[in-house]
Amino acid sequence: MVRSHTSISNVVALIFFLVLLIIPSVQSTTATTIDVWPKPRLLRWAPLHQLSLLSPSFTIASPYDHPHLSSAVSRYLTLIKTEHHLPSSVNNPLTATSSPPPPPSPPLQSLHIFIHRLHAPLHHGVNESYTLHVPNDRPTANLTAETPWGAMRGLETFSQLVWGRPSRVPVGVYVWDDPIFPHRGLLLDTSRNYYGVGDIMRTIYAMSANKMNVFHWHITDSPSFPLNLPSEPGLAAKGSYGDDMQYSPDDVKKIVEFGLDHGVRVIPEIDSPGHTGSWAEAYPEIVTCANMFWWPAESKWEDRLAAEPGTGQLNPLNPKTYQVFKNVISDVVKMFPEPFFHAGADEVTPGCWKTDPTIQSFLSNGGSLSQVLEKFVNETFPYIVSLHRTVIYWEDVLLDGVVKVDSSILDPKYTILQTWNNGPNNTKKIVDAGYRAIVSSADYYYLDCGHGGFLGNDSQYDQLVGSDTVSNGGSWCAPFKTWQTIYNYDITYGLSEEKATLVLGGEVALWSEQADPTVLDSRLWPRASAMAEALWSGNRDETGKKRYAEATDRLNEWRHRMVSRGIGAEPIQPLWCVRNPGMCNAVHASI
Amino acid sequence: MVRSHTSISNVVALIFFLVLLIIPSVQSTTATTIDVWPKPRLLRWAPLHQLSLLSPSFTIASPYDHPHLSSAVSRYLTLIKTEHHLPSSVNNPLTATSSPPPPPSPPLQSLHIFIHRLHAPLHHGVNESYTLHVPNDRPTANLTAETPWGAMRGLETFSQLVWGRPSRVPVGVYVWDDPIFPHRGLLLDTSRNYYGVGDIMRTIYAMSANKMNVFHWHITDSPSFPLNLPSEPGLAAKGSYGDDMQYSPDDVKKIVEFGLDHGVRVIPEIDSPGHTGSWAEAYPEIVTCANMFWWPAESKWEDRLAAEPGTGQLNPLNPKTYQVFKNVISDVVKMFPEPFFHAGADEVTPGCWKTDPTIQSFLSNGGSLSQVLEKFVNETFPYIVSLHRTVIYWEDVLLDGVVKVDSSILDPKYTILQTWNNGPNNTKKIVDAGYRAIVSSADYYYLDCGHGGFLGNDSQYDQLVGSDTVSNGGSWCAPFKTWQTIYNYDITYGLSEEKATLVLGGEVALWSEQADPTVLDSRLWPRASAMAEALWSGNRDETGKKRYAEATDRLNEWRHRMVSRGIGAEPIQPLWCVRNPGMCNAVHASI
Repeated sequence: MVRSHTSISNVVALIFFLVLLIIPSVQSTTATTIDVWPKPRLLRWAPLHQLSLLSPSFTIASPYDHPHLSSAVSRYLTLIKTEHHLPSSVNNPLTATSSPPPPPSPPLQSLHIFIHRLHAPLHHGVNESYTLHVPNDRPTANLTAETPWGAMRGLETFSQLVWGRPSRVPVGVYVWDDPIFPHRGLLLDTSRNYYGVGDIMRTIYAMSANKMNVFHWHITDSPSFPLNLPSEPGLAAKGSYGDDMQYSPDDVKKIVEFGLDHGVRVIPEIDSPGHTGSWAEAYPEIVTCANMFWWPAESKWEDRLAAEPGTGQLNPLNPKTYQVFKNVISDVVKMFPEPFFHAGADEVTPGCWKTDPTIQSFLSNGGSLSQVLEKFVNETFPYIVSLHRTVIYWEDVLLDGVVKVDSSILDPKYTILQTWNNGPNNTKKIVDAGYRAIVSSADYYYLDCGHGGFLGNDSQYDQLVGSDTVSNGGSWCAPFKTWQTIYNYDITYGLSEEKATLVLGGEVALWSEQADPTVLDSRLWPRASAMAEALWSGNRDETGKKRYAEATDRLNEWRHRMVSRGIGAEPIQPLWCVRNPGMCNAVHASI
Repeated sequence: MVRSHTSISNVVALIFFLVLLIIPSVQSTTATTIDVWPKPRLLRWAPLHQLSLLSPSFTIASPYDHPHLSSAVSRYLTLIKTEHHLPSSVNNPLTATSSPPPPPSPPLQSLHIFIHRLHAPLHHGVNESYTLHVPNDRPTANLTAETPWGAMRGLETFSQLVWGRPSRVPVGVYVWDDPIFPHRGLLLDTSRNYYGVGDIMRTIYAMSANKMNVFHWHITDSPSFPLNLPSEPGLAAKGSYGDDMQYSPDDVKKIVEFGLDHGVRVIPEIDSPGHTGSWAEAYPEIVTCANMFWWPAESKWEDRLAAEPGTGQLNPLNPKTYQVFKNVISDVVKMFPEPFFHAGADEVTPGCWKTDPTIQSFLSNGGSLSQVLEKFVNETFPYIVSLHRTVIYWEDVLLDGVVKVDSSILDPKYTILQTWNNGPNNTKKIVDAGYRAIVSSADYYYLDCGHGGFLGNDSQYDQLVGSDTVSNGGSWCAPFKTWQTIYNYDITYGLSEEKATLVLGGEVALWSEQADPTVLDSRLWPRASAMAEALWSGNRDETGKKRYAEATDRLNEWRHRMVSRGIGAEPIQPLWCVRNPGMCNAVHASI
């Protein structure tokens, strides 16, 4: 991993740690198997591996008046005192000592929180580092962080240290932690299928347990417009799936606040000018090709009207488009305090604009589709920036093969590009062009892949026996992305150290053609956890070797814990494997 | 479809239907879009497409004293009166008339059940045909069936006709129905991961809603032995995952009775002689290679000790093996009244037996591994038959490349072979050898495929960027089997009409390496529904054309209904597609 964030406090922490190393009479390099996910950058358990009980009157002392931190402290205190997690692995040293003699250390009475910059807002790049010290000679643990958001990360770590009934906690533990990448996100598409506010909050809760910090909310798209906007109420009234499948301003406020309570930023995406068929229900005049069959039988693939069923693109040549657009953006910006705004701009499909007479006329007068898109961007990008937002676009706006803008109209200062095609190659193109990048490579991070296609009347599944026409299973981005595939991906692959600093992080993505609340948790978890660790502390051990073997056992344990916390994460192995670490390996682990 | 079951009652029904065709003044070939899944063999809705209300005092009149039928009648009456299903498609003619003028027909007061052979047991091949007539001129519908089990199928169909609030029902409807294949099953592996009794009952409930009739319970395997047996209590006590992860005799009784109440046979599988590692916890002396690393680092693939982690095979050369085995089978036969018993016999792995000194000695004296297996089969097959059971084996017992028995020792009268390898080729081999076949082709019917591999420390996922070493996603039976792949498979492909009669039907299978209760419903449904219809009424329309296009819309609706019935079936399309039938097709449907 090429990236590292250092700050004064981290240097102090490191010095403190070095002192700790010197003081004990026994120096040991024994690896601990305390399971914390994502694995901290540094976790040291003193050689005796002592445990202590958690006092029944255990408390978390936080002297700060900070509503979100207070909420987190209260939540974690309840969790820590009531979870009573039992490790599932019979070989886990914690389990092995599940009936220990009364621990020699005094019961842990409290965790004290110290924060240096209480009022640091939860923005991109905010310091999330923390140190956690659970001593073995006094009943008070200390959690020190630069910001409340780092303290939340430390609280999560502490919660994962506690286990058993009565609750035990390892003592003589020191943790120093700091994410490698500042942007660790999850995209959820709530347009193709609707998710309730509770589903979204549960997802944010699970994200925070995995120390992820960005919920990328792909709110609107062609299938539905579920966001109820005060200035444009017709868009949801007519374009949503129904009154019971909308997000009200109060819902959004609840979700944003919930995010803050969990250290998770909520970045809204209003995709445009493509993926806007649903806008046509209220404003047919600003949308081209709406409600048409997406791929007319007589057309070539490249002449289809949309990347997938659900047609419609905003018409950049109609002035009214901008009137509606600006009302939308203005409302959204008010609802989401987050300084990043995602403006979409993916998959602008030539065939759709070509159905419109005004665009036809523009083209026949020598104009190009890219000029049509440039007009749209020129009208909208400065407006969004004027609302004090940094704009995230999908890479297509610059890298599409047909319809794209010149990079001169997108100031890198206010523009971030999110890559999804072509693996590390497009990441490289983006940073080489001087833009910051968010990595959502479909080859690694798309959680919907490998589940077949969703089109009806698709004859490829009626395959002749013995043929392999659907060897990929009919999913455009097959195969299924296993947790291992996700875990092993190096998002700065092939970049110089300098260029790598432009990679802000990554996002796993759940597009909802074949997902809705019935499968939400199992599609996301524990695969999103794999990215969460890779971006937090990396996917390699101290020697630089990929650590997926030992990660298997830890992820089993973490999945088990997530399920008991109410997150319906899918199993990655039979329970027999969970209980017999290493026995289900492809080869003997060399760790 | 080459198979058809006719009986006197069906002929009578057909004559009745022909009379109905003649009587009305208007003859119409208008296809109805009433959504019943699986689609009945024949469903006719009189041309006026009249609806009636369901009377608030609607009742089901069944004069029979039959506990399972009574249970079904009571259950369906509650469902029919309380479901109030609302079709999700805006184009559905039922929805289009969701606020109709008061229907002209009188409210439907009752459904009368007539059964010809009340005491027909729920065995393989039992008649499941029924006719259902909901007239438009009187308030009484009639359901006529040969057996109680056919009546249950008809009740399910009737329940799917009722929708809306207040409840409406189409009248002038005639249904004749009869399954093409008598064996329509679902395999669940409860050894690799455990499922609660409630999970199993919910699965049986969902099966019956899909008119499936065989729950193939793969109870035991190497990872765990969850079945608590009175004669051999140690097997579960030591070989299960824990006291809370066992099936007691009372649990089994509950499940078997629940199956009978739902017209679902419960066939137990006790896999042997392979897949028996868990037996070694109680009886290490009868199991070879137990608890060894499955694929020693120095070994070739063909010398591994088990097909997958979790080693152990019963030792056929140890007399004690048969003592324990017979205790087990004797108990199981008492717990499961079903006349079919599944004895496993898949994936006998040479390397495992070769670790045993007595088998080594047998081999060095000129014996073969196949002889070892033959000894096992000769000792066990006649015993199972003596308990009045027909034995199902996996095809391996006859078709394995290395360890197999001679067909002369398996009397086709008492033997059925279940195929899982090599698509239709092995089905053909089985029926050509004169055996009855159950089709579970891994290429079409394995619901766990395409989800990556479950092995730890598997370096293939750490792929070099741009390589496609895991192009299949790391699952041995990738890709994911979509509902379309399942729906389109013709299980008698390439067989003569005569040989095709030996194909009893099929089973979708959920192996549980990467499944447990968190994902059970979504892995099974609605994909199992696809097989359910293909085996009930086929996958082609009246013209012989595959009907997957129109099936898409019906399956969407059925999935929607299953979810509202508490079955967590996964979505197959965005709601927009569900509401706009045909608009998400790959090409325009020609239906």
